[in-house]
Amino acid sequence: MDRRNLLTAAGLGLGAVALAGCKDDSAPAGEASGAPEQRFRWKMVTSWPENFPGLGTTAQRFADTVARLSNGRLSIQVFAAGALVPALEVFDAVSSGTAELGHSAAYYWKGKSAAAPFFTAVPFGMNAQEMNAWLYEGGGLELWQKAYDPLGVVPLPCGNTGVQMAGWFNKEINSLDDLQGLKIRMPGFGGEVLARAGATTVNLPGSEIFTSLQTGVIDASDWVSPYNDLAFGLYQAAKYYYYPGWQEPCAVLELTVNKQKLAELPDDLRAIVIEAARSTNQAMLDEYGRRNAEALHTLVNEHGVQLRRLPDSVLDRLRDISGDVLEETAAMDPLNREVWDSMQAFRERIQAWHALGEKAMYDLRG
Amino acid sequence: MDRRNLLTAAGLGLGAVALAGCKDDSAPAGEASGAPEQRFRWKMVTSWPENFPGLGTTAQRFADTVARLSNGRLSIQVFAAGALVPALEVFDAVSSGTAELGHSAAYYWKGKSAAAPFFTAVPFGMNAQEMNAWLYEGGGLELWQKAYDPLGVVPLPCGNTGVQMAGWFNKEINSLDDLQGLKIRMPGFGGEVLARAGATTVNLPGSEIFTSLQTGVIDASDWVSPYNDLAFGLYQAAKYYYYPGWQEPCAVLELTVNKQKLAELPDDLRAIVIEAARSTNQAMLDEYGRRNAEALHTLVNEHGVQLRRLPDSVLDRLRDISGDVLEETAAMDPLNREVWDSMQAFRERIQAWHALGEKAMYDLRG
Repeated sequence: MDRRNLLTAAGLGLGAVALAGCKDDSAPAGEASGAPEQRFRWKMVTSWPENFPGLGTTAQRFADTVARLSNGRLSIQVFAAGALVPALEVFDAVSSGTAELGHSAAYYWKGKSAAAPFFTAVPFGMNAQEMNAWLYEGGGLELWQKAYDPLGVVPLPCGNTGVQMAGWFNKEINSLDDLQGLKIRMPGFGGEVLARAGATTVNLPGSEIFTSLQTGVIDASDWVSPYNDLAFGLYQAAKYYYYPGWQEPCAVLELTVNKQKLAELPDDLRAIVIEAARSTNQAMLDEYGRRNAEALHTLVNEHGVQLRRLPDSVLDRLRDISGDVLEETAAMDPLNREVWDSMQAFRERIQAWHALGEKAMYDLRG
Repeated sequence: MDRRNLLTAAGLGLGAVALAGCKDDSAPAGEASGAPEQRFRWKMVTSWPENFPGLGTTAQRFADTVARLSNGRLSIQVFAAGALVPALEVFDAVSSGTAELGHSAAYYWKGKSAAAPFFTAVPFGMNAQEMNAWLYEGGGLELWQKAYDPLGVVPLPCGNTGVQMAGWFNKEINSLDDLQGLKIRMPGFGGEVLARAGATTVNLPGSEIFTSLQTGVIDASDWVSPYNDLAFGLYQAAKYYYYPGWQEPCAVLELTVNKQKLAELPDDLRAIVIEAARSTNQAMLDEYGRRNAEALHTLVNEHGVQLRRLPDSVLDRLRDISGDVLEETAAMDPLNREVWDSMQAFRERIQAWHALGEKAMYDLRG
């Protein structure tokens, strides 16, 4: 498939049913489909608190961008988690059409689509630059759309945190022994890996992390990275700030669109939704680069946060277990297999290039 | 300045003169400025051969994206180098209004704006992810716009190659001695640095590199990275393929827009130009990630290309000289000083974050 044709109904795999009533995509640009004055008022539900830095603000940026590009013909009202539906019901709301759009993360929908977690973050996996290349150039986005298509939802990347941190700890981790019985909050693949390594993993909402750390209910927790972690004040509840963020070398944020509603848009508004997602995808990564840099400086220089690196013995074990978990997940479902094989093949090639390129430059410069 | 307001005439620094006749930016979205049927047919001149992979194709992608988003209201005709104006006259064409748009690289315009080379690539400097963060979040884009404003041109990032390679060599470089008298094609800051290190640098157009290498007129040349280098067949003209690309840790591609023409657009079309540049900025980096990975595999496995790493003794010397060249360039002009200080301050902070983040992940994974 020519991946640039994701902008067409056919390219989005919208199929014959959806095309009924839609303009023929082969007609030349310049002929508006639908009445020029037709205006759309859409709802976007999100998994984030109101205007949450980086996450909620990125959802809002997408909405604002679409309004500007469409001259108001497509206006989007953004709902924080719980305002229209709870955080973990965003996918269902979009699937059913309760909301036309959602902004969330794919790894919440493991129960709806077994392959979904691959599209957010893979332990020891690809970073933001590599994930974007796989999604847009390596067949990744087509596979993601294939995963959601039976549920009537179209996904698009719409933000990325970049590399995360391994988390906040009240116990030092000097060896694998220190993981045994460690009570740690970590969701997704990462939590599964830690559990197999001997830790006791829990999955708490972000809002409960601070108190649980402070009261000792948990010994440790991940959250995101300096920007969001500073905002939660986690340095007041935990002693050590560990890196590297092995469990999330990046985290892709997800825009979901109701497939039928997307098909019913005039061509230019559909193009606006797709392109605004892509520019927003970059905008969030830019923001996180700047904000993480500033927040790290604050954490270390104003709050005396103690940085620690996880020992190689621990990282090696986590890497091995991650390989097992990912391979078992791939074996669960033919589509999972397709996704994991595609990711691994792409990653192998781009890693060999980055060894001479991006990585070699970090080695050279620091 | 709220950097998100680059979408407004005021945010773009278009000023009072440009606003004459423009819609008031404070009016709510939804009120079209200008007649809805007003259509624009713009010209884009570029520094690239017709449909040149990655470079010319990126210019075309931008034009196609704008046409789709605007429903044909803003159509852009793309001209290869020489078709309307020569490659190195793109800036003047946009400045004078001969063409409304240009797609090129800022480091060609050193003679017009002393700070321009900073906005393409800095030896031992920031990579693509860091440059994007500096440009969009760290004040970089405002400084770039300040540099070009007296010439009536507005710049926007519109593509990035990612890290490049150090070049194709017919002599091995094992020590600083091997640089003495080496005849090498390399433009920009990199060429200046090599010259001070003892090499004889020349600046040839891309189209002359192959023959010059093959006939021994030059001993070595940079070009870009595996994707574009494979297309030029350079492996047939040189023995060794050196890395890391110290001279261009990334290369920002530049969209230039005639300031008056940009101001005269209706708000939504101006927003489309700006946002399409941003999504295209990411699209090119995605493409280069994938294509470089594939091309490197081909070069090594099908053409037996010999990869070599420049020795640390050479890289250390090039790094020292680069520092001198950049500092001297900064001292030439108050705006240069502002740009270089801004870059260094931003880079220091983001480098400290990436040491725990992106770099730490490359160290962990490979």
